[in-house]
Amino acid sequence: MLKGWPAILTLGWILLALSIAAAGVALYSLVARDGLSPLFAEVAAITAGVGGTCVLSTIGRTFELRFRDATLLTVLAWFAVPAFIALPYLADPLDLSLADAYFEAVSGLTTTGATVLTGLDDLPHSLLLWRSLSQWIGGMGIIGFAILILPFLKIGGMQLFRLEFSDRSDKRLPRARSIALVVAEIYVGLTVLCFLAYRVLGMDAFDALNHALTTLPTGGFSTHDSSFGYFDSAPLQWASVLFMILASLPFLAYFRFIQRGALRDRIDPQVEAFLLTIVAATVLFSTWLVTSQALGVGEALTESTFNIVSIVTTTGYASLDYLGWGTFAAVWFFILTFVGGCTGSTAGGLKIFRFQMASRIVGRHISHTIHPHAVLPLRYGGRLVSDEQVGSITVFVALYLATIAVISVMLAILGLDPSTALSAAATAVGNVGPGVGSIIGPAGTFASLPESAKVILSVAMVMGRLEILSVLLLMFPAFYR
Amino acid sequence: MLKGWPAILTLGWILLALSIAAAGVALYSLVARDGLSPLFAEVAAITAGVGGTCVLSTIGRTFELRFRDATLLTVLAWFAVPAFIALPYLADPLDLSLADAYFEAVSGLTTTGATVLTGLDDLPHSLLLWRSLSQWIGGMGIIGFAILILPFLKIGGMQLFRLEFSDRSDKRLPRARSIALVVAEIYVGLTVLCFLAYRVLGMDAFDALNHALTTLPTGGFSTHDSSFGYFDSAPLQWASVLFMILASLPFLAYFRFIQRGALRDRIDPQVEAFLLTIVAATVLFSTWLVTSQALGVGEALTESTFNIVSIVTTTGYASLDYLGWGTFAAVWFFILTFVGGCTGSTAGGLKIFRFQMASRIVGRHISHTIHPHAVLPLRYGGRLVSDEQVGSITVFVALYLATIAVISVMLAILGLDPSTALSAAATAVGNVGPGVGSIIGPAGTFASLPESAKVILSVAMVMGRLEILSVLLLMFPAFYR
Repeated sequence: MLKGWPAILTLGWILLALSIAAAGVALYSLVARDGLSPLFAEVAAITAGVGGTCVLSTIGRTFELRFRDATLLTVLAWFAVPAFIALPYLADPLDLSLADAYFEAVSGLTTTGATVLTGLDDLPHSLLLWRSLSQWIGGMGIIGFAILILPFLKIGGMQLFRLEFSDRSDKRLPRARSIALVVAEIYVGLTVLCFLAYRVLGMDAFDALNHALTTLPTGGFSTHDSSFGYFDSAPLQWASVLFMILASLPFLAYFRFIQRGALRDRIDPQVEAFLLTIVAATVLFSTWLVTSQALGVGEALTESTFNIVSIVTTTGYASLDYLGWGTFAAVWFFILTFVGGCTGSTAGGLKIFRFQMASRIVGRHISHTIHPHAVLPLRYGGRLVSDEQVGSITVFVALYLATIAVISVMLAILGLDPSTALSAAATAVGNVGPGVGSIIGPAGTFASLPESAKVILSVAMVMGRLEILSVLLLMFPAFYR
Repeated sequence: MLKGWPAILTLGWILLALSIAAAGVALYSLVARDGLSPLFAEVAAITAGVGGTCVLSTIGRTFELRFRDATLLTVLAWFAVPAFIALPYLADPLDLSLADAYFEAVSGLTTTGATVLTGLDDLPHSLLLWRSLSQWIGGMGIIGFAILILPFLKIGGMQLFRLEFSDRSDKRLPRARSIALVVAEIYVGLTVLCFLAYRVLGMDAFDALNHALTTLPTGGFSTHDSSFGYFDSAPLQWASVLFMILASLPFLAYFRFIQRGALRDRIDPQVEAFLLTIVAATVLFSTWLVTSQALGVGEALTESTFNIVSIVTTTGYASLDYLGWGTFAAVWFFILTFVGGCTGSTAGGLKIFRFQMASRIVGRHISHTIHPHAVLPLRYGGRLVSDEQVGSITVFVALYLATIAVISVMLAILGLDPSTALSAAATAVGNVGPGVGSIIGPAGTFASLPESAKVILSVAMVMGRLEILSVLLLMFPAFYR
């Protein structure tokens, strides 16, 4: 008997949410009269059936998080749910191929935001809404995964963020449930605020809704081919900057803030580092824009802040084709692809705390080389970091880079040029969205890539979303013993 | 008073060897009547003066290897000696700029083999001989450094290869000296054998000498712009393959073999992995050449073995422009840039044993994630690997990749396109030689890069040669306290 019920339940929740979303889109389609309501009604029925079964099958189970089953089902769920999301893409009017539809669905659920679609401005609104909802649901799912499951898998140093549950297991479940509920409320609340901000600052209701649904999960799908460039509005860009940053902060910090009103004392060390990184990257790049590209200070600040925050938070909106600024811009944005936001949020990438830990580990090693007999404990946010956790972080960083390397090679073998291959791999594993270069850059799409490249990138997006190791584990025979 | 006399002595040795080399070249120039004998006589005098002073100043000192002084002087020596090697490049007929001359000299001493020169076929022979000798001396220097100094710096897991000295320090010195002497004899002996092989298989005496002098240090300088392609001879390529591989094996293994006749029992685990890597890379690439590029089996095997061994051993000869085979070839050779040979040889790169250790560390971590309570000791070549050594290796790999990343960014800011920037950084830090792309690929040179890029790459070559951390240490204030 499978003991991994939290994973089944999660899968059930996601599918039920998806079916509600599909039903909502079907209703919307009726109002918008774009003729897709039967399609979405069908999707809603299929998804509700499978999701309902999952949830019902977990009723009455006692809490017993078995490592193996939870991992297995989580990974399977993240590969399986996109198949449901892809259903409407396979039908009229898009008629995408299987690989294209799955890619678009995975890019949605993993909140990556890479797309194979062009002509977004002319698509039926119900399809655009479906894409946006897929990101919003995926964002909710990944926060739950990051807060409730990942820390127990001891992957990539996530155990640093383990919740301090009571040791009595009968207390754990209500605590986990109440945290998940509060976090979901925060997620919904921020989405509503984001919608209002976009609406007030000039978007129409449909655009405001869609962009709010893709800002909070740091997803990046837009309703226009030119993304935020379509609106040509600095206030809208700054509002988006605010909400992209809010979406990349640890959601547990909001929870603590609400529960205890505490902001300073328990603040995560990652938040300050994250904000500093954004400020530093923006100041440097704006200065370069003003001095070498002769932009005005205001324009340079707005454009660099918006596009840098979009990449660092792994959202993936663009306000213009920043690659037109030349080689340095391309390299700068490629590097930012790796950074990522805070853990416990919807942001992807390597994540800020791993950079903090990596620099401390290297610094300690250098001190140790100079003073071999010194005892140098590592701390993070007041907690002592064990050797096991240090190993967990370094292995994660190595696997992250190795995964990108292996995927780039596979893409290059399929005929992509080296820059596009490397940047596609990095943007997929980091769940960022746009890459570098004329094909997959902010002004391009993934449409022209070979089908097999899209399948590889779909796997890459899920691996990146689930912190890689959880997917790799399934490939080891020892895992099943 | 400085206690780092082994480093001063090393510097002195290198400079004296260099002055003997310069005197030899001056004599050769007299015979060859290319008019450069006064120049080289002057270089010999300057170098002998400085080198002699270094050696004399260490007479009568007792052995006391102070970590700080040894590191400081080693690093300074590797930056200073190229200044002497560069002297002839600054004068007629080359008249190189300061940056170009220093780059060419560093590329020689670090046995990298990247060049800013074209028209090699028409250069005065004494200058070609000088370039080749700079690599041969650099090779000797790096073996000494790798065997005698590096293991004590605890850098990058090199402590795994620490010599089992007696604990009594009065026994250490004679042992170190006798090892250095035997290793030098092996190095000279292999050079002579290589010369004979090249001569017998068809090179003229001058070409055979120069290529023997640049094969053994896995250097890669040639006397022809088309490198080994000039000879168009499969037997010569196979002879070169043999000696490049011999030059990339741990020289201590030869020492042990000679002393004890033991080949099997004490064999380094890195040797087998190194040979397997070469065979695997060659078989895969030959198969691809035969199936997708329609080459004959014999030609595919010769060309891929020669060029792959040249890159993996970090020699850098080329028999043809393998980048003409397209994207996959470019990616394949770019990856091979990172591999490197065995430690304790003249080969650069990340080195095979670090790949072995990295895969074992990741494997152990995965096992540990699956079975959290299992005790899983790490071994390498029969020795238990401590947590400190594991940390040392992971930090090294991270710093190696970070160094390449930082240098690529600097090069991109200077205007190099991203592929060239990344590949130039990787080939310099790995001390390989040719990069990927039309500018710095096997058919190109580094001549057209900006002066500042050449300075950065010169620093990169020395950092790579000295295992990075030894150079980085000097940048930390704590090092000087």
